[in-house]
Amino acid sequence: MVSYSTLPELIASISDVDDAVAADARARHRQLTKPPDSLGRIEALGVQLAAIAGAVVPPVPAPAAAAVFAGDHGVHAEGVSPWPQEVTAQMVANFCAGGAAINVIARANDISVTVVNVGVAIRIDDHPMLRNVPIRAGTRNLRTEAALTADEVIEAILVGAGTAEDLLTDGARCLITGDMGIANTTPSAALISAATGVPAAEITGRGTGIDDATLARKRRIVIEAVERAGDVKGVELLAELGGLEIAALTGFCLAGAAARVPVIVDGVIALAGAIVAAQLQPLVTRYLIGGHRSVEPAAAAALDALGLDPLLDLDLRLGEGTGAALAYPLVRAAAEILAGMATFDDAGVKQSE
Amino acid sequence: MVSYSTLPELIASISDVDDAVAADARARHRQLTKPPDSLGRIEALGVQLAAIAGAVVPPVPAPAAAAVFAGDHGVHAEGVSPWPQEVTAQMVANFCAGGAAINVIARANDISVTVVNVGVAIRIDDHPMLRNVPIRAGTRNLRTEAALTADEVIEAILVGAGTAEDLLTDGARCLITGDMGIANTTPSAALISAATGVPAAEITGRGTGIDDATLARKRRIVIEAVERAGDVKGVELLAELGGLEIAALTGFCLAGAAARVPVIVDGVIALAGAIVAAQLQPLVTRYLIGGHRSVEPAAAAALDALGLDPLLDLDLRLGEGTGAALAYPLVRAAAEILAGMATFDDAGVKQSE
Repeated sequence: MVSYSTLPELIASISDVDDAVAADARARHRQLTKPPDSLGRIEALGVQLAAIAGAVVPPVPAPAAAAVFAGDHGVHAEGVSPWPQEVTAQMVANFCAGGAAINVIARANDISVTVVNVGVAIRIDDHPMLRNVPIRAGTRNLRTEAALTADEVIEAILVGAGTAEDLLTDGARCLITGDMGIANTTPSAALISAATGVPAAEITGRGTGIDDATLARKRRIVIEAVERAGDVKGVELLAELGGLEIAALTGFCLAGAAARVPVIVDGVIALAGAIVAAQLQPLVTRYLIGGHRSVEPAAAAALDALGLDPLLDLDLRLGEGTGAALAYPLVRAAAEILAGMATFDDAGVKQSE
Repeated sequence: MVSYSTLPELIASISDVDDAVAADARARHRQLTKPPDSLGRIEALGVQLAAIAGAVVPPVPAPAAAAVFAGDHGVHAEGVSPWPQEVTAQMVANFCAGGAAINVIARANDISVTVVNVGVAIRIDDHPMLRNVPIRAGTRNLRTEAALTADEVIEAILVGAGTAEDLLTDGARCLITGDMGIANTTPSAALISAATGVPAAEITGRGTGIDDATLARKRRIVIEAVERAGDVKGVELLAELGGLEIAALTGFCLAGAAARVPVIVDGVIALAGAIVAAQLQPLVTRYLIGGHRSVEPAAAAALDALGLDPLLDLDLRLGEGTGAALAYPLVRAAAEILAGMATFDDAGVKQSE
């Protein structure tokens, strides 16, 4: 396992998936005892897993590991969320106690959960489930200034990459992106608007649920922040519009791609991290699997820009990695199909005329 | 466990789900540590499971059991499918050997598979995984005559109900509908057109994959068969337009509802069986969960008529129960969420303002 001490090293370690293997996996699908293409997107997913692994019969992507990156946001002071900022820390405790939605869904689907404090505003006690590595006590207020310095961004990216690396060393063969951070749909909308060019006014949503007045305020803040940031990309973009957990998710996606392991992307926060990862290294998108289509409008813009067609569309808007974790059994099944089904020849089944 | 010896007894044993418990489950969701409604359709699914079980915290619907009902179709002689009829029997052997898509997906998701020969055209040898109870060697040709007699239909319905009953006695707490029958999208399209009033010309699709000439021929046959059948319902409708495996699926759905257990409905064949079950007892729909949105056009008409919004939309058109089995982890997770998540009070997490 390569250890990524610098961001350029991490980016340089990513190579393309294997398109020749993908073609062979497509051919194998046509030999399996089912009508051609009848498993639709499950077949396409199996082909992607084959191309990622470089094996026509891809290894089953198990065990899976979810990392929930937690951070706070200076912009919370602008009243963009109905939730008190201390809920970020309270939810970190809830994750460690196993009581949050991601814990329940992960247990149901054989997924491990690791919680990473990459920048919660309140001091958090150590816990066996927690990587307690805060870079600073939340970001600066993106309405008025750059949320992070470039050094802080790179540090957060490497925390995300290091988390992925450790999970992979421990045996994980599928990575699941998770997040927690009160107010974090605000930087995510801003990042996605800046990265895609879709106007901030169209892209800013209600997050976990805000009223019309709060939405109008949030929208103004996102519009102004995107204007302030101007035409920057990658590390500079993350510095302007921030999100320590978002930067960590950027690193998590990059490290998954570097290790040739599929990364299931959750909702709008994870997509913001992924879209910056794709700016740093466009090949990363070939390792990403869209878990679900969040109701948050920025998600659609990011999915389009990344070329991801998500597996689920269940009106989810929780975050934590829940949508990606709910999609995981489909990913596992897609690999199992290529490995476990009989061919027409094996089974003595005639083909269509 | 009630044994259903007659169809009227089976129908009479179905009562409504518990709407008061559903309201309590909705209230419980609002106490769990997540923004209100943020798990979208997973929350609605949990509420349905609670109403079915009559328990605010519904039992996890596990283990799950899939039954794959196999039958042949006299209309195959009209050239409505590119597959030889013997493939039905060959696929029954493939199911018993564990090599088909439903076997693989079921293994991946802890679902048992039972195969039921309710009317394959070829004699099939006994096998430990097979209920070998053919009612006749395929249906009559629905283009020219009633596919089945009323007695044959009732016998097939009771085979389906008895299969469900035995699976429930063995401990199953979730039923998954499966089917196999070369040419069976033809009777399914006809049944769904007759039951919904959606014109046969709009509803007839390409099944597992047919060319334009075959589609035109299939469409003419479906239009004429629906006209021939006239305005009949329930057992008479199944007799006219047939499908021994479809009638068995009708009974399977009814028996699941009678036992107050969720039934995950697969694609267009299962929907044809379910729509007749709903004609016999409209309350059955409250126990049904739409597994996926098949690309076959009759599926959309049937889902609308049954009031089902399916969980997955992955361009599947395989049958066998594959789409329902792929959706099963979502059903399990929906129950686990109500059982396993901490409340705001338990976790000491503040609520939104």
